Amino acid sequence: MTALYGLTAIGNAIVDVLAPASTDFIASQAKNGMQPNTMNLINAERAAELYGLMGQATEMSGGSAGNTMACFASFGGKGAYIGKVADDQLGKIFAHDTRAIGVHFESAPLVGGKPTAQCLILVTPDAHRTMNTYLGACTQLTEDDVDENLIANSKVTYLEGYLFDEPKAKAAFFKAAELVKKHNRKLSLTLSDPFCVVRYRDEFMALVENHVDILFANESELKELTQLSDIHQAIESIRGKCEIIAVTLGEKGSIIVTKDDTIYIEVVPPKQLVDTTGAGDAYAAGFLFGLTEGKPLPECGRLGSIAASEVISHMGPRPLVNLKDLI
Amino acid sequence: MTALYGLTAIGNAIVDVLAPASTDFIASQAKNGMQPNTMNLINAERAAELYGLMGQATEMSGGSAGNTMACFASFGGKGAYIGKVADDQLGKIFAHDTRAIGVHFESAPLVGGKPTAQCLILVTPDAHRTMNTYLGACTQLTEDDVDENLIANSKVTYLEGYLFDEPKAKAAFFKAAELVKKHNRKLSLTLSDPFCVVRYRDEFMALVENHVDILFANESELKELTQLSDIHQAIESIRGKCEIIAVTLGEKGSIIVTKDDTIYIEVVPPKQLVDTTGAGDAYAAGFLFGLTEGKPLPECGRLGSIAASEVISHMGPRPLVNLKDLI
Repeated sequence: MTALYGLTAIGNAIVDVLAPASTDFIASQAKNGMQPNTMNLINAERAAELYGLMGQATEMSGGSAGNTMACFASFGGKGAYIGKVADDQLGKIFAHDTRAIGVHFESAPLVGGKPTAQCLILVTPDAHRTMNTYLGACTQLTEDDVDENLIANSKVTYLEGYLFDEPKAKAAFFKAAELVKKHNRKLSLTLSDPFCVVRYRDEFMALVENHVDILFANESELKELTQLSDIHQAIESIRGKCEIIAVTLGEKGSIIVTKDDTIYIEVVPPKQLVDTTGAGDAYAAGFLFGLTEGKPLPECGRLGSIAASEVISHMGPRPLVNLKDLI
Repeated sequence: MTALYGLTAIGNAIVDVLAPASTDFIASQAKNGMQPNTMNLINAERAAELYGLMGQATEMSGGSAGNTMACFASFGGKGAYIGKVADDQLGKIFAHDTRAIGVHFESAPLVGGKPTAQCLILVTPDAHRTMNTYLGACTQLTEDDVDENLIANSKVTYLEGYLFDEPKAKAAFFKAAELVKKHNRKLSLTLSDPFCVVRYRDEFMALVENHVDILFANESELKELTQLSDIHQAIESIRGKCEIIAVTLGEKGSIIVTKDDTIYIEVVPPKQLVDTTGAGDAYAAGFLFGLTEGKPLPECGRLGSIAASEVISHMGPRPLVNLKDLI
């Protein structure tokens, strides 16, 4: 069956609040559990406290899978997004930005509950980002939000590991995985974050072995998943457990791993390095755009690198130019 | 009496929604009354319609006088802001961003009324901006919001011409002007926008002659105010009507006009020209920072040019670096 969409993504629908911060400030927040360069889950009280300590900020729609869809659409891909915002100003911003780039987004907003999720992102002068997420309305994403029609009509369905952080969203995740199998489509997973892998290692490994076709992981996530401190050993230990594994290595490029092949992809140097927020999301978008367009794997990797390069050249996780103009 | 604050500004408290747009799109909106490169007042329905036509956007606190205070504080100046947000998510963003840069902001938010004002800003590839403002809660700024203590304790009080667009805000404007006189402080006015001058020309001229000490205007605003199409004739016709007139001329720099002197200030070329939103606001901030620090007029002009240069080098109306590091 032909597919109406190249990609449908399910994720935590989040508005990012980005502000520059010093490494000293990040260090000073260790007492509050802040882990540098990762995603930290925070509650409403901590979000208010941390926001009060942050400088003047910029608001932009974000969320890992949301960023991936923005890049996928920017390449010219046709896609859809499933995620839960609230019926509030930030939710309207998220919905607008998602639809404005041509992504189908009809998930019903949450009425009368928690507010739209926010991610307080501190960007240090070395361009690294430390994320602090208050999930808000995302905790109310349920199986009912997983539209079978979208999954059935998408070549690939893409899921964030972050969804595991909430029981209802996790149930939605598994429902989506079942529907992908039922409709004979492909399932893609991003491990999202090393601490997310720590939280759900065994379940992620079972998913990779039994459900996932295309896995995205960065170096630290893959080491956490395999419990191996050498990246090459980690790669060998997971090779063949799913069809394609794309491992991003930051400034060292990426490696595409299949049962029989190992393909090294060079990084595309950014014009300037400003903010790495969304780099992995962008890579996945370029890769999956190539794959759903029937491109060979090296070209998929190159498209991923192009997208990541654009996104890290400015503040914010989504492209500021049409990515299709860059290829 | 010594002053606690260098500057207190009163303005429309607005969150900007910035998106790139083509000149063709701007032209296509002429049928809806959109005037390119100016500020257009719109109602809630038109705001929803226009937002729906805009691409993926970025949200940042704005408002003319709010931007001026952000730059003033970024130079190291001590200041305060008076403006009306609503008790909603965008209002909290505006309040946070204002306080985060060290500006005193305690205006009571509007509860149960219109939402926080938004300005839909379309930035064309030539870096010009066309603004579309839905005033929302700003329409409920009243005389009661004008805190006499702040005016009494500020060397200069700065008012936006934009305040004239709402009767209550206009009354607040005149109350502030009276308080400045009562406490023997200085009053500064920006004409804001050529169409704003068209709307209130006679009143603005009376203000300049009777109340204002320091006037800010760009070329088209001054021509509108004086009804003279030659900028030098316009300058001569207004010379001496108030103590200082600072006329900004875009890439041609600026001219400071007093009863006896005319001082030409060169532009500070930006690293790159991206978005002129907030250029005039930033110039006023640098100028007034210099003035309240007792600097000579040429230095005041230079500080204005430095601030404007930084602000036009990126998207958004407020500085992304500490302006005091640039001087």
